[in-house]
Amino acid sequence: MELTRIGTVTAHLKPPQMIGPGPYGIRMFIEIMDGTLEGDPSVPEVNSIAGTVLPGGGDWVLIGADGYARLDVRVQFLTSSGAVVFAEFLGLIEMTDKVQDALMSGAATEFEDQYFRVTPRLETGDPQLEWVNQAVFLGEGRFVEGFGLQYVMYRVG
Amino acid sequence: MELTRIGTVTAHLKPPQMIGPGPYGIRMFIEIMDGTLEGDPSVPEVNSIAGTVLPGGGDWVLIGADGYARLDVRVQFLTSSGAVVFAEFLGLIEMTDKVQDALMSGAATEFEDQYFRVTPRLETGDPQLEWVNQAVFLGEGRFVEGFGLQYVMYRVG
Amino acid sequence: MELTRIGTVTAHLKPPQMIGPGPYGIRMFIEIMDGTLEGDPSVPEVNSIAGTVLPGGGDWVLIGADGYARLDVRVQFLTSSGAVVFAEFLGLIEMTDKVQDALMSGAATEFEDQYFRVTPRLETGDPQLEWVNQAVFLGEGRFVEGFGLQYVMYRVG
Amino acid sequence: MELTRIGTVTAHLKPPQMIGPGPYGIRMFIEIMDGTLEGDPSVPEVNSIAGTVLPGGGDWVLIGADGYARLDVRVQFLTSSGAVVFAEFLGLIEMTDKVQDALMSGAATEFEDQYFRVTPRLETGDPQLEWVNQAVFLGEGRFVEGFGLQYVMYRVG
Repeated sequence: MELTRIGTVTAHLKPPQMIGPGPYGIRMFIEIMDGTLEGDPSVPEVNSIAGTVLPGGGDWVLIGADGYARLDVRVQFLTSSGAVVFAEFLGLIEMTDKVQDALMSGAATEFEDQYFRVTPRLETGDPQLEWVNQAVFLGEGRFVEGFGLQYVMYRVG
Repeated sequence: MELTRIGTVTAHLKPPQMIGPGPYGIRMFIEIMDGTLEGDPSVPEVNSIAGTVLPGGGDWVLIGADGYARLDVRVQFLTSSGAVVFAEFLGLIEMTDKVQDALMSGAATEFEDQYFRVTPRLETGDPQLEWVNQAVFLGEGRFVEGFGLQYVMYRVG
Repeated sequence: MELTRIGTVTAHLKPPQMIGPGPYGIRMFIEIMDGTLEGDPSVPEVNSIAGTVLPGGGDWVLIGADGYARLDVRVQFLTSSGAVVFAEFLGLIEMTDKVQDALMSGAATEFEDQYFRVTPRLETGDPQLEWVNQAVFLGEGRFVEGFGLQYVMYRVG
Repeated sequence: MELTRIGTVTAHLKPPQMIGPGPYGIRMFIEIMDGTLEGDPSVPEVNSIAGTVLPGGGDWVLIGADGYARLDVRVQFLTSSGAVVFAEFLGLIEMTDKVQDALMSGAATEFEDQYFRVTPRLETGDPQLEWVNQAVFLGEGRFVEGFGLQYVMYRVG
């Protein structure tokens, strides 16, 4: 089992909608504004998914009493060839002081500033991209300046 | 077991993002643009949830080979008192000729023009609205003019 | 929109496996031991789903701090004609004193002793039963003697 | 981001219940009979989750037309110290000839005989094991003799 780095997703987010402390924990919805998906030049098949993050979708996140946020994300990408790829995933963010700063002030964090991991499932109908329906993915995240996120994405080979 | 009519949701939609024929069927994402939630005057507790449909969220719908669309919706409401209510639901739309017209041309349908039923689960942290976390809901839908949907919502008592 | 009573499910349960207070609340798994599904004689199409509840599956329930249990059930039925029907559903049980007694001592409750509602989604590949893939269902529950459950099931027409 | 091998799960399965070609694809339910979870000796914290696979739960798998099976698993483990850990996960199995043999005849496969990857989310209320609620996991699978599965599990650090 090996991880192949396939690209980097950077997304900007709208201000959170606070749903509040409900039956499953403290829920917020954070809508995606826009973003980019850059393929890794060393993986030719992956350049075919480079493109933009579409507006719509977002994260229905739960802020846990144990100091971890639990992500529940749905988002779409538009590739440069015009295909739409749907990604759905759970994940975890350790709510360190730097993460709390990032949420309050829009500051950036480094990848090593928190445990921030996701396991996306991708889905598309584009025949050129059928490989995304047939692989498991892993991502490592951080906050970027101006209330945004960045993920380095890996295909689990 | 009785159904209490609690209100009417009307939402306008953005043009679909076609994800295409993937592992679970033909997937589209239809983002919510805006909308309103009107409480039924005869149910005082319900007027407290009247308000607007927030932008963000939408329907990750699968178009089935059997002539039914299977909805998978996440959406937020903002009540007039400032609370955010999250609704998540599955549901079914029978893809009659009139529904296909509505999808193509933005025409309206009547409630009796198709089988269109949903079972929303609501979630909020607002203490005045705790009853929405503690009930099962049912909705009946139709298309409205200009690519929109309308649901009559019932609390299952 | 009308509710058609289609039958009654009675299931016996194994002792709960207590997973405990985790990220989403207090989780238990309650496995299904066996049971029956009786069709309502007045609905001919429904007699075709009469049969037994298969062992396997169960309820990954969360016990809420607000006095409600939130069900998350997966279960299979074997019809008398040999078809397997999968049901997946969320639902709510109001944790009244009588419900707590039922959980501790295996006592029965009446339908009016608690708010206990579920919204099953059914799935099968049997061509005679395609109608279960194309309808929304609603159920009302109670506890039966000896740590079991009974649901009266309705098709939402 | 690094993968730490935490242990090996081996589970025996009951004969599949064929639900059939439904709205999302060809669905089967495969119930778990029993199994073991062995911790990796080099990871002390992990030995604390060694134990058995509890009966109950299983895989509500979809067999895709594209030659991949899509897993949807819920299962419980009982650790040697008496804690119950719930695992929920999606995953993929490439339906190679050897996998089809394994499904028909109960033969074993090697890890390299198919692409078989899962992304478990673990959940427990045991305070000694809180770390399983706060990590993302990855598993690589194969078939073992006699209709069973084996996963090597990794914590994504």
